[in-house]
Amino acid sequence: MTLDTTTTPPAAADGAGRGERARTARPVQPAAGALRGAGLGEVTLDGGFWGTLQDRNAAATLQHCADWMERLGWIENFDRVAAGTTGPDRPGWQFSDSEVYKLLEALAWEHGRTGDPAADALFEALVDRVLPAEDPDGYLNTCYGHPGRAERYTDLSAGHELYCSGHLVQAAVARLRTTGEDRLTALGRRVADHVVREFGPDGRDGVCGHPEIEVALAELARATGDDRYRVQAELFVERRGHGTLDPIALLGPAYFQDDVPVRETEAWHGHAVRALYLAAGAVDVAVDGGDDELLEALEGQWRHSVERRTYITGGMGSRHQDEGFGDDWELPPDRAYCETCAGIASNMVSWRLYLATGRVEYVDLIERTSYNVLATSPSADGTAFFYANPLQQRVAGGDVLPDAVNARAEGGVRAPWFDVSCCPTNVARTLASWHTTAAAVDGDRTGVLLQYATGDVRLTLRAGELHLRVTTSYPDDGDVRVAVVAAPEGSALRLRVPSWAGGAELTLPGTGTREVAPGWVDVDALAGGDELLLRLPVQPRATWPDPRIDAVRGTVAVERGPLVLCLESTDLPEGVALDDVRVDPGQGLRDHGDGALVRARADAAPPSGSGLPPFGARPAVVRPGAAFDLPLVPYHRWAERGAATMRVFLPTS
Amino acid sequence: MTLDTTTTPPAAADGAGRGERARTARPVQPAAGALRGAGLGEVTLDGGFWGTLQDRNAAATLQHCADWMERLGWIENFDRVAAGTTGPDRPGWQFSDSEVYKLLEALAWEHGRTGDPAADALFEALVDRVLPAEDPDGYLNTCYGHPGRAERYTDLSAGHELYCSGHLVQAAVARLRTTGEDRLTALGRRVADHVVREFGPDGRDGVCGHPEIEVALAELARATGDDRYRVQAELFVERRGHGTLDPIALLGPAYFQDDVPVRETEAWHGHAVRALYLAAGAVDVAVDGGDDELLEALEGQWRHSVERRTYITGGMGSRHQDEGFGDDWELPPDRAYCETCAGIASNMVSWRLYLATGRVEYVDLIERTSYNVLATSPSADGTAFFYANPLQQRVAGGDVLPDAVNARAEGGVRAPWFDVSCCPTNVARTLASWHTTAAAVDGDRTGVLLQYATGDVRLTLRAGELHLRVTTSYPDDGDVRVAVVAAPEGSALRLRVPSWAGGAELTLPGTGTREVAPGWVDVDALAGGDELLLRLPVQPRATWPDPRIDAVRGTVAVERGPLVLCLESTDLPEGVALDDVRVDPGQGLRDHGDGALVRARADAAPPSGSGLPPFGARPAVVRPGAAFDLPLVPYHRWAERGAATMRVFLPTS
Repeated sequence: MTLDTTTTPPAAADGAGRGERARTARPVQPAAGALRGAGLGEVTLDGGFWGTLQDRNAAATLQHCADWMERLGWIENFDRVAAGTTGPDRPGWQFSDSEVYKLLEALAWEHGRTGDPAADALFEALVDRVLPAEDPDGYLNTCYGHPGRAERYTDLSAGHELYCSGHLVQAAVARLRTTGEDRLTALGRRVADHVVREFGPDGRDGVCGHPEIEVALAELARATGDDRYRVQAELFVERRGHGTLDPIALLGPAYFQDDVPVRETEAWHGHAVRALYLAAGAVDVAVDGGDDELLEALEGQWRHSVERRTYITGGMGSRHQDEGFGDDWELPPDRAYCETCAGIASNMVSWRLYLATGRVEYVDLIERTSYNVLATSPSADGTAFFYANPLQQRVAGGDVLPDAVNARAEGGVRAPWFDVSCCPTNVARTLASWHTTAAAVDGDRTGVLLQYATGDVRLTLRAGELHLRVTTSYPDDGDVRVAVVAAPEGSALRLRVPSWAGGAELTLPGTGTREVAPGWVDVDALAGGDELLLRLPVQPRATWPDPRIDAVRGTVAVERGPLVLCLESTDLPEGVALDDVRVDPGQGLRDHGDGALVRARADAAPPSGSGLPPFGARPAVVRPGAAFDLPLVPYHRWAERGAATMRVFLPTS
Repeated sequence: MTLDTTTTPPAAADGAGRGERARTARPVQPAAGALRGAGLGEVTLDGGFWGTLQDRNAAATLQHCADWMERLGWIENFDRVAAGTTGPDRPGWQFSDSEVYKLLEALAWEHGRTGDPAADALFEALVDRVLPAEDPDGYLNTCYGHPGRAERYTDLSAGHELYCSGHLVQAAVARLRTTGEDRLTALGRRVADHVVREFGPDGRDGVCGHPEIEVALAELARATGDDRYRVQAELFVERRGHGTLDPIALLGPAYFQDDVPVRETEAWHGHAVRALYLAAGAVDVAVDGGDDELLEALEGQWRHSVERRTYITGGMGSRHQDEGFGDDWELPPDRAYCETCAGIASNMVSWRLYLATGRVEYVDLIERTSYNVLATSPSADGTAFFYANPLQQRVAGGDVLPDAVNARAEGGVRAPWFDVSCCPTNVARTLASWHTTAAAVDGDRTGVLLQYATGDVRLTLRAGELHLRVTTSYPDDGDVRVAVVAAPEGSALRLRVPSWAGGAELTLPGTGTREVAPGWVDVDALAGGDELLLRLPVQPRATWPDPRIDAVRGTVAVERGPLVLCLESTDLPEGVALDDVRVDPGQGLRDHGDGALVRARADAAPPSGSGLPPFGARPAVVRPGAAFDLPLVPYHRWAERGAATMRVFLPTS
């Protein structure tokens, strides 16, 4: 089924077909600080790793999401509210409205990115359906407050009403910035005004079980200049952590970060997406409110959690039960949850912290998470997704189910949709605007290249446009050529040397080649016609885990540039079992396409089932195998060649 | 609050105060096979490891359970049904009735074990409350089928109605065997008859989401000689695995073993207690029905699951999300679930398989699980319990809550009660009858000693009573003296040499001392006055995990006799962190009380928080520490000396 769309001509369009205001539009615009991210039209990717992902998102994923939500009745839920025919049989979880809103946000960014009229038409068609479901007082939710349904705000712990409102507001912000005021942005304001009336300083003393409204209201304040929204976001952040939410079944208050106030939190804990959405909103509140103490607390949480509770992929979430963070050093590869949405939310936090501080480690983590979590989720055709991103698959994936009940976490295969289907629309909105995090402007005169991809970067500086032409096969190859097409007088360029890129070299016009250390490297006095060459050493490297991570003791991972590699059973020699493979990276790692070759043996354990002693507690007698070369492939593409077992961390002996 | 009890004088009592029929009463009495377990009065423990646990259970745990259930209204639920005043506000989960029934079963065994009139009085007082809640047609459940409550059998997946009925039937079996027919046993029959009418060959084609009714009906058939109950149990076993149950939320049909028929199952999977209760009932059905194919399948499941899905403690269940088994070799120590009830259920299965086959490995596992799971749960005073039994605690336990909402699995401290509180009453019923698995009779003339504890064993053989006096400090010490007080002509004795006891020695009268290999050792031609000495080498030993268990690669466990040892932070030198400890068992393990000393170092990692590179993916620079002796203590007593961090598997380098 395809959603009916009516073609609406875009407003004043620039050369790419996008409206002029969309050129500098971007998801995050702090009210304070010297840094700003690139606008939608300031970076244009020509194919390559991320350009391909963006184009596929536009060509396949957006319509795919709309079709599934139409099929499942999640869009019709709005029609039924408008018609007064909703009731106890409403399909979808209580938060299904949010998926429609995330798709709206994705369509707004996509239309802003390319001016594609099809994206705009789908956007308008969805708004046609959503708008009539609004209650007269600005409340909009298809699950609550209607005949046969529970009353509004009777279940703040699990109801997700403010969460849904937040996603609607984020769609409105995207539309406002890319197109300008329209009926959806007006709806977003009315919904936000309703929230402020209900939950303001004199209203209900409550928060939503799932943070999201905080980051949405903070950005709406930035987009509209209406400070009430920022104050409300601040109120939600500060109210949290005082145990006001009723616990859900077996999950304590830590599940939704209601156990400790944000500014007293040491490490992220509980449900990962909730913790990270909350942190993103808290950074916004801290930055715009000049709350340095809060910002410092959030930076501390990032450092602690990234060091001790984050996977090598950048994935976050060690537990299935609560989709949550584990204790320090609790990072099991096989039961890694690493929800796609948590990777997206991690990028949201890191991006805000970069804009607030200019620190390179935040951008390093965005690179790691983008290549190894965000890019891992969608299938090569953009119509199936990983919800969880474990680092080890012990049992090859089974069949994908044709309906929406695919297992979120243990499938081992990408699925077109889930019964809780937060990830596909989240991937869609994130990819549509991803390139706005590839470059930045620092102050009046400095352009910053953060991520490397072939395309044009046209950053508006105070004195004019800094136009760079970037040419690279990154991450397959580490050579990045930056041609300065035009540079205003006195402009400068800052390049990121990734933390893994020891031995990188930079060639500048005139001064020749020099080694540059990981971190920032600044190039002054740019002029049109200059050509720079940054050489990043992407050859495969062994990464030994911290000895405090119990679950991967005695193993090694192999990385290549920003890519984490993995071993898939697909690539094993005949008769070799994944469990029996031992590698020796000391014998040299070699390039192998976009992956690597590592020297390995298959030390076969004896056939099982002998029965005594049981408990696997005596080492099996091992028959050492002959050495062979074992190909490792990028993790982000695993399970694309058929169901397979897989592991990132490889035993060494 | 203390439950009112009325003292009822026991029926004809033997010397111990128990009724004569209780002497040979026991929970499991297969209708076929040469082996039988000891009766309640055939083994008498005098203190020691298990005697102390049993006495504490009698003195503290039974009343503790009754008091909590009275306090929470779980007993009053029966009163309210009888009075017609129950409704939507009924306290407790839908399965809370089963806790009352498990306590009834525990009291029946306890009264049968010792004749204690207090146990009998509490039993009768509970029956006074339960009986009036029965519906006229024999249906009994306080949660379903009453005004304001859901209808009967409308939620077979989650309703637990047949599960509750099963536990009532098990209480009735215990009463029938220990005391004889009474009002509770009559109730049990009526409830069972109702189940047969509703779910018989011509009734509803359904099974219960939580197996239990199978094992209960099979035993009721044995206790009453009424074959209809066996047929019904068989029907439930065979109906399962065909996807008839509606899935629960995010859990697929594997959660309750409805994905594969029992006889086609290769390994236990899904919710561990469900899988094991089902397997126990299936063994009963296979044995009594002469179904060798089914029995062989169940033995295969045991072998596969014990080798690849079972912890060194005997604990089962690797996942929190579904309280379930993991994939092969998925045995994380920190997130081990190892529910106490799963250990109990594992013993139920192994005991039945031993009785069916006589194989020693089943008894070896019972020993392991009894000492390291069952005995771990109750606190030293018998009024607090572990629900989950992980093998590593990363964060020291917090406060126990005074109400019943204590976390099941992540507390790190024993709690008096839980909101799902299946374990305390399960421990109670299991301990009350545990000694019936310490000895057995094989055929007409052979007594079998299975577990070693000081006390008297008086087994009724065809030719008379074989009376053995056992004296030992096992497991603290490995010397077991067996004095033959009286032996009928031609009687024989079989002793179990545990699988871990390589180098054991047996001294027989006349023939001197010889080494005996793990397994069975037979002693013929017993005569009164004979004295045997079995020396089991309980000194500490290093146990290296199977290399396929990823989560404990590079570590070693230390065992001492049947006890798994652990390291508690309580025993660390000042300034040493648990995460930094490395041991070298190659430098010798020494006895240290009932634990061991191992040579260790603390290789301190540098202070954290430096921030780059994150993800813990670079080995911390380690400062080797000086060697010291580190005490290890029995796992079953961990967290008794205050909240602590703990680990069983110790990194070696």
